[in-house]
Amino acid sequence: MQVTKHISSTQNPLIKKVLLLKEKSRERKKTGLFVLEGLRELQIAFNSLYEIETVFYCDDIIENSESNTILKSYNIDKLISVSLDVYKKIAYRDTTEGVIAIVKGKDHQLASLSFDTKNPLILIAEAPEKPGNIGALLRTADAANLDAVFIANPKADLYNPNIIRSSVGCIFSRTIKMGSTTEIISYLKKERFNIFCAALSASKDYTTVDFKEPTAIVVGTEHSGLSDEWLQNATQNIIIPMEGEIDSMNVSVSAAILIFEAKRQRKLNN
Amino acid sequence: MQVTKHISSTQNPLIKKVLLLKEKSRERKKTGLFVLEGLRELQIAFNSLYEIETVFYCDDIIENSESNTILKSYNIDKLISVSLDVYKKIAYRDTTEGVIAIVKGKDHQLASLSFDTKNPLILIAEAPEKPGNIGALLRTADAANLDAVFIANPKADLYNPNIIRSSVGCIFSRTIKMGSTTEIISYLKKERFNIFCAALSASKDYTTVDFKEPTAIVVGTEHSGLSDEWLQNATQNIIIPMEGEIDSMNVSVSAAILIFEAKRQRKLNN
Repeated sequence: MQVTKHISSTQNPLIKKVLLLKEKSRERKKTGLFVLEGLRELQIAFNSLYEIETVFYCDDIIENSESNTILKSYNIDKLISVSLDVYKKIAYRDTTEGVIAIVKGKDHQLASLSFDTKNPLILIAEAPEKPGNIGALLRTADAANLDAVFIANPKADLYNPNIIRSSVGCIFSRTIKMGSTTEIISYLKKERFNIFCAALSASKDYTTVDFKEPTAIVVGTEHSGLSDEWLQNATQNIIIPMEGEIDSMNVSVSAAILIFEAKRQRKLNN
Repeated sequence: MQVTKHISSTQNPLIKKVLLLKEKSRERKKTGLFVLEGLRELQIAFNSLYEIETVFYCDDIIENSESNTILKSYNIDKLISVSLDVYKKIAYRDTTEGVIAIVKGKDHQLASLSFDTKNPLILIAEAPEKPGNIGALLRTADAANLDAVFIANPKADLYNPNIIRSSVGCIFSRTIKMGSTTEIISYLKKERFNIFCAALSASKDYTTVDFKEPTAIVVGTEHSGLSDEWLQNATQNIIIPMEGEIDSMNVSVSAAILIFEAKRQRKLNN
């Protein structure tokens, strides 16, 4: 295994490509590639069978032994050493990491989905916008080992650097599918999921419903909630009773309360 | 009721005072005052018996009828109209609100605490740092109508503008107390609270413990968890079993799962 190249110019075309992929959602869509930062994230993506195209590392930041570990374990033939100046130019988390990679995005189409279990528990978020919320949803999905996360009517590009960062790697470890609300509802009905939509009206207290069958928990945005299409197609709309004065919970917090109540019920059932 | 003053100079001493209070934690501590932005936040603070010292409003942004409503309902004799330039200088949320106030902070000492209930449920966060997390914790505390929130070994100034903003007013609606971990533990023992500390080891699954007695749920930081002092003084250390690959949940998400399990148990008990 050999290091093929060293780049010390910020004008190098490959460096320009990294910057484009990092900054432009359009470029990511066009090429199917995205940029990932950090050794830990790289390891998670690799373990989750992401295709690693190129790894840039900066010797001034990471230990040599670490870069060797990367080389050996990933068998990446496009490993490129970069100068500190170049690294600073392409990094978004200062210079704490020392490893940046170009990675191929996965197929997030619904058609490619299959489950390992007969009784899946999945989370669906409709049109989530804030990267921090999407990251927190994915962290909860990972902690609960959900069978999948669906993003309905996606507004954000999944491989936005802020989503990757705030998910602390959970974006790679989870099965994520995207599609229109219509498409996803028709899938869920075909697969006989119970659809529980978090809603503010005509809803049952979430602790009184049965999450033990194949279950989709659906949450909307903090600002406008779920679309009518979801609410009308729910098996049951559910609510977390708000007892305070402000009536406002973070969407990732609400989703977690619902998911972990489902987990609790399923544990009792075993 | 009359508008006493109009300020159109950004060099006005009162405007400089607002800027200082907004930007300097030291200034807030010295004076016991802080700055609040937004009509909704002002209303919540007012309803929660905060003392409103001065209200600045910008006619170019808010409707006249609204400013009159403020005048009439709050009986504030220090209502000051400001020019758009001045408003832009002192606002942190662009110009969406049009109302900014200097408000007197409350007494957050433990000694001043009393409960309305014989069976309180409280949340304790040790040394939380990120304003967004503190805001989310307070939103959950409000939604669950917790009897109090304690901040142990506080690192951040409670009236930091980013905490106020991310709490969407819940910082005003909740009873918040601050003190050292030692002080708070001694208070909890004296008051015969069960202390449940979120921990990673020597812990019981949170769904198997009884939250129905007077209960303090204690969470640490995402980075380093709780101090040994908490873990050693717990009635029981508890854990949310992590079943994923990354083992990482947002602290406000974990706290919410624990709090709402306590709420669920208490509802069954009624």
